[in-house]
Amino acid sequence: MPFMETPETAALLHTLFLIAIVAEAMTAALAAGKREMDWAGVAMLGCVTALGGGSVRDVLLGNQPLTWVEHPYYLLLTAGAALLTIAVAQYMHKLRNIFLLLDAVGLVVFTVIGCNVAIRMGLPTVVVVASGMITGCVGGVLRDILCNSIPLLFRAELYATVSILTGLLYIVGRRLEFDHQVVMGTAMVVGLSLRLLALRYGWSMPKFVYGGNIH
Amino acid sequence: MPFMETPETAALLHTLFLIAIVAEAMTAALAAGKREMDWAGVAMLGCVTALGGGSVRDVLLGNQPLTWVEHPYYLLLTAGAALLTIAVAQYMHKLRNIFLLLDAVGLVVFTVIGCNVAIRMGLPTVVVVASGMITGCVGGVLRDILCNSIPLLFRAELYATVSILTGLLYIVGRRLEFDHQVVMGTAMVVGLSLRLLALRYGWSMPKFVYGGNIH
Amino acid sequence: MPFMETPETAALLHTLFLIAIVAEAMTAALAAGKREMDWAGVAMLGCVTALGGGSVRDVLLGNQPLTWVEHPYYLLLTAGAALLTIAVAQYMHKLRNIFLLLDAVGLVVFTVIGCNVAIRMGLPTVVVVASGMITGCVGGVLRDILCNSIPLLFRAELYATVSILTGLLYIVGRRLEFDHQVVMGTAMVVGLSLRLLALRYGWSMPKFVYGGNIH
Repeated sequence: MPFMETPETAALLHTLFLIAIVAEAMTAALAAGKREMDWAGVAMLGCVTALGGGSVRDVLLGNQPLTWVEHPYYLLLTAGAALLTIAVAQYMHKLRNIFLLLDAVGLVVFTVIGCNVAIRMGLPTVVVVASGMITGCVGGVLRDILCNSIPLLFRAELYATVSILTGLLYIVGRRLEFDHQVVMGTAMVVGLSLRLLALRYGWSMPKFVYGGNIH
Repeated sequence: MPFMETPETAALLHTLFLIAIVAEAMTAALAAGKREMDWAGVAMLGCVTALGGGSVRDVLLGNQPLTWVEHPYYLLLTAGAALLTIAVAQYMHKLRNIFLLLDAVGLVVFTVIGCNVAIRMGLPTVVVVASGMITGCVGGVLRDILCNSIPLLFRAELYATVSILTGLLYIVGRRLEFDHQVVMGTAMVVGLSLRLLALRYGWSMPKFVYGGNIH
Repeated sequence: MPFMETPETAALLHTLFLIAIVAEAMTAALAAGKREMDWAGVAMLGCVTALGGGSVRDVLLGNQPLTWVEHPYYLLLTAGAALLTIAVAQYMHKLRNIFLLLDAVGLVVFTVIGCNVAIRMGLPTVVVVASGMITGCVGGVLRDILCNSIPLLFRAELYATVSILTGLLYIVGRRLEFDHQVVMGTAMVVGLSLRLLALRYGWSMPKFVYGGNIH
């Protein structure tokens, strides 16, 4: 039964999920600090960034109840991580590379989790990939909207591309009935590698530059 | 049975819907190009703009599953249209008037479709009109928010007004049990004419200009 | 039975709710006027600001149908209040303090109503407090996003803090099975007082100011 999610896989994915939401909340807190938000704003931006992608996915797919409604301690964890960031921010530039790594891990973990939600609901392949991408990317989009900047996602180094590719690899592997752990590991490692290489070498998707005034 | 939706009406509305989402995705792609978004951003902004109004409507009305979850090829169609725009953008200024026309067609088609969804759910008249307006207008609002500009909707030539008027005509005609096709045709032609006249002659709603500082 | 909501409490809460959504719609209209929105934009921003917090709460908690779908006259009331503001705006600076008071009343009333929704759904304490805060604060966040400014919430005088504190007092009082009216009154009076004192003396949460460039 190659599609079985073993308890070990589930536990690993969950641990990575917890690490990823903490990392997302902490980088969101830094974005809040650049906007000179108050402590309540920092905590809220942390929650929205870390849990917003999954929430938007569940609202769009009608997958109630939402994760943080069932597991409210995720709210406390992400708000706490964001507030903790205020105390440790001065040391965080030394950890810049670790946070970029954790952010990239979060991207692929969120993507796989989002794909799994849609697969469990029996949705078609295109929606599974979209579900992964929404889970992986929308938290950061909400963060940027609340900070009043154009979402980084639309311009950053392969961020959305990595999510789509990870999701595609994962869903194709599962449809081909390869071993679930191998498929999941491969999709995540390939996605993670591409993201890290893109960060290292400044790879990015071609940009579309348009100067007309149709609208 | 004047309320019957004939297969012909449904097929016409569906064809106009497909044309409209393609046109919305293509104009969204141009907006993305002005912000120098990358290709993934262009594709996503196309999907969100074309399908966002209907998605927000369905989420607010609890009308699951969403259109693109049931018909995932809408995602491929709008993403594809947005990406195609990158190749043909240089010729699009010549087609400016066609796009403004298609955008206006989209506005009234989305409005009628949105009204129909609420009518089928048995919702009260005010909500039917609101449902039409959300379907017609929110996609553009999401596009403008993601591009970090004040939504055009709140200032553009009669855009929201046309949607409200189209919805009102349609719902009143249906409540009066006039022939469905006549009602739908009249509402859409009146709405479309008003929008095109507003574009041609620069008509707009009065603006509210306030210089105080209450907030 | 200390948890009983008496008809009197419910009627008072409902009256305060109506006053609050009118006040929220009117202050939103002034914000629209500063952005020189047209009349349709003013009406919509009024509706979204006054009813958006409750709508987002209900969408996130899966609490269908939404308030304004069941009671569509809320849409007419808030749109009407926003449009009326255009006529009376020139006199409103004299009423500045009244509006700040009504806005503060709205904050605590929305918070208590939001807590009640989550309590009735049997949700855990953390989610009850979050539900109160979303109901109290998100309308203003949507207004600021649509006006293309960084949400005031993240920087304003104790706004979110007041909502969290009101919600905490209310839920703790209810869990301790104190008399419902006393609990509700206490939570609202304490929250209201804190907000008014914060406005009067310029109290605010500490801000987190970060100048690094991790992201």
